[in-house]
Amino acid sequence: MNAPVISLSRRLRKSPFEARSHAGAVAASVYNHVVLPTAYASLEEDYWHLRDHVQIWDVACQVQVQIEGPDALRLAEYLTPRDLSNIVPGQCMYVPLIDEQAGIINDPIILCLAPDRFWLSISDSDVLLWVKGLAVGAGFNVKVSDPNVFPLSLQGPKSETLLSRLINEPVADIRFFRFIETHIAGIPLVVARTGWSGQGGFELYISEPSEGERLWDTVVEAGADLNLRPGCPNLIDRIETGLLSHGNDMTIENNPIEAGLTRFFKMGKAADYLGREALERIVETGCRQKMVRLVVTGDPIRNPRETYPIHLAGTDLTGCVTSITYSPRLECNVGMGYVPSDRADVGTELRIELPDGIVTGRIAGKDWQTGED
Amino acid sequence: MNAPVISLSRRLRKSPFEARSHAGAVAASVYNHVVLPTAYASLEEDYWHLRDHVQIWDVACQVQVQIEGPDALRLAEYLTPRDLSNIVPGQCMYVPLIDEQAGIINDPIILCLAPDRFWLSISDSDVLLWVKGLAVGAGFNVKVSDPNVFPLSLQGPKSETLLSRLINEPVADIRFFRFIETHIAGIPLVVARTGWSGQGGFELYISEPSEGERLWDTVVEAGADLNLRPGCPNLIDRIETGLLSHGNDMTIENNPIEAGLTRFFKMGKAADYLGREALERIVETGCRQKMVRLVVTGDPIRNPRETYPIHLAGTDLTGCVTSITYSPRLECNVGMGYVPSDRADVGTELRIELPDGIVTGRIAGKDWQTGED
Repeated sequence: MNAPVISLSRRLRKSPFEARSHAGAVAASVYNHVVLPTAYASLEEDYWHLRDHVQIWDVACQVQVQIEGPDALRLAEYLTPRDLSNIVPGQCMYVPLIDEQAGIINDPIILCLAPDRFWLSISDSDVLLWVKGLAVGAGFNVKVSDPNVFPLSLQGPKSETLLSRLINEPVADIRFFRFIETHIAGIPLVVARTGWSGQGGFELYISEPSEGERLWDTVVEAGADLNLRPGCPNLIDRIETGLLSHGNDMTIENNPIEAGLTRFFKMGKAADYLGREALERIVETGCRQKMVRLVVTGDPIRNPRETYPIHLAGTDLTGCVTSITYSPRLECNVGMGYVPSDRADVGTELRIELPDGIVTGRIAGKDWQTGED
Repeated sequence: MNAPVISLSRRLRKSPFEARSHAGAVAASVYNHVVLPTAYASLEEDYWHLRDHVQIWDVACQVQVQIEGPDALRLAEYLTPRDLSNIVPGQCMYVPLIDEQAGIINDPIILCLAPDRFWLSISDSDVLLWVKGLAVGAGFNVKVSDPNVFPLSLQGPKSETLLSRLINEPVADIRFFRFIETHIAGIPLVVARTGWSGQGGFELYISEPSEGERLWDTVVEAGADLNLRPGCPNLIDRIETGLLSHGNDMTIENNPIEAGLTRFFKMGKAADYLGREALERIVETGCRQKMVRLVVTGDPIRNPRETYPIHLAGTDLTGCVTSITYSPRLECNVGMGYVPSDRADVGTELRIELPDGIVTGRIAGKDWQTGED
């Protein structure tokens, strides 16, 4: 598509940071009804900068769903195969949400604010409606709401230095996937050591949208000598890091076993959850396909508009590429996709059908090596 | 916002028509995870053309939610205060969906395909998750799914002439809010006399996305001498027509009484529905505010990014403008918004706080007259 103006009306929710973050964005999308910048200089320049410095990201699109009340924990448990029985206030956990057939509804991070109050920090689908529907239908004693909270993300190797200038608490005390409640310039914030990059960083959750621009400006000023720049989730970095994107790498048609999310939960958790029977059946009978990493040398490949078909020797079953991009650091294309489960070994050769021809690639390990070099 | 490229990945669902519809669009948005063009020449030029000729609209973003099974009608009834007991196959109805507090979840058109199979043709929220959540939670015996069906809309006074060239059935036999199952160029379609304009027209629902471009081309060819052009839902036309936009003119924070949707349902329907108690309480106690039409003379006013506050004489209660645009035909700004219920008479003067100053306007009747001219 060429570059049309994005029509802004009330229907697209206003980010508290957009007066700052939209300036300079050369590409954008809409995510959870909020505009999300997707590139500033270019994908590659943004990528190198993110690896070397620190960026400020408007991720207001990472909308929160609040669950509070006597049944809040029981409902949170009901949404996911992940065991939440030991979660404590100040803790975050990655929780794939599944439906009755074990299809992935969304893959939020849950924040435990109190034993009876949680936020789901969601990817791109209206989880509010899913959780409300289940709660109303099944009679959970909870209030499910949109708390009007908006994240701002600081990502990159200098994010720790930057944050240490902004808060009084020792930053090193904020462990990975933990958060504290603190203030920056008098603005109350939840600050978590989380974020959608492989370079480390923090997410700052603001509850007062009217303070968004002042928060942004305060952070930018504190990072002036750190080469701080506006940025956004970067396609190259997130694929290299192996971060799955809901809607791209998994949808409601996929289950968390085939999507490779098994490290985030153990089968047989004590609490009741939706989709347990379906998930146990999948474990028992095995998945038809499995998510793998892919490497393709040669010319840069565009991220697919839909999926690209994958063909493999010795089987009529096809796979598909769900995300792919050129990595200027690894000097090859790095991607993700599904292949038949019995053809998922690292090093396996495959052919990918692009719109304009066939290319060959290999299944790669976590380090993007294919065992061939 | 300037004109960034819209990043297209698999996460934004592909319209079967986008290879045709995106060309020439000068503004766009995202609606139900699908790109929606919002202007081609300009809002005003598109408006005049729509009133005089016929346009082809890519409204694949008007996603369908299918409900089928033994409890399909009972669940459909449960979703809305509108009485569906007399709905018959081939019929469409506008059905505001409400939650347990009578907040408006969405305002789809329901299509009755069979006594036990319905489509909800939705506005911009993930109704699939809402309906699935309720169905799973409350144990309705239904299958709720995304049937992969995409609407193409023909709108404008010449749409009847155009359609008559494309189908064998007499177009005049398709009554307002009725549909038939037919073919164009061998492509099976549901064709309904519906559409989001005030100029009349039809919506063509295609089930085979691979035939989308051929359908588009067939329609364009048949309309060559009718001055057919690509178009899209037009802000000026839809406000003049009084079509409410979910997300703009009503949200989950509004109930259908204050939004003025009472003509679409009667209180006291026989079937059970969610939100009945809340809705009856609202009717009993009265609404704080009411949706009205607004007229403002003078310079063109931009459609609000958020709402614009409304102030009225004799009350501290404020209202808000939810949508507004300049009508080149009426030579004034036409808008919609909420005002305190006891200040909702046609002709009432009001002051609107724009970002750059105050303007005065009046509450208008359905014909946009304020009783003053």
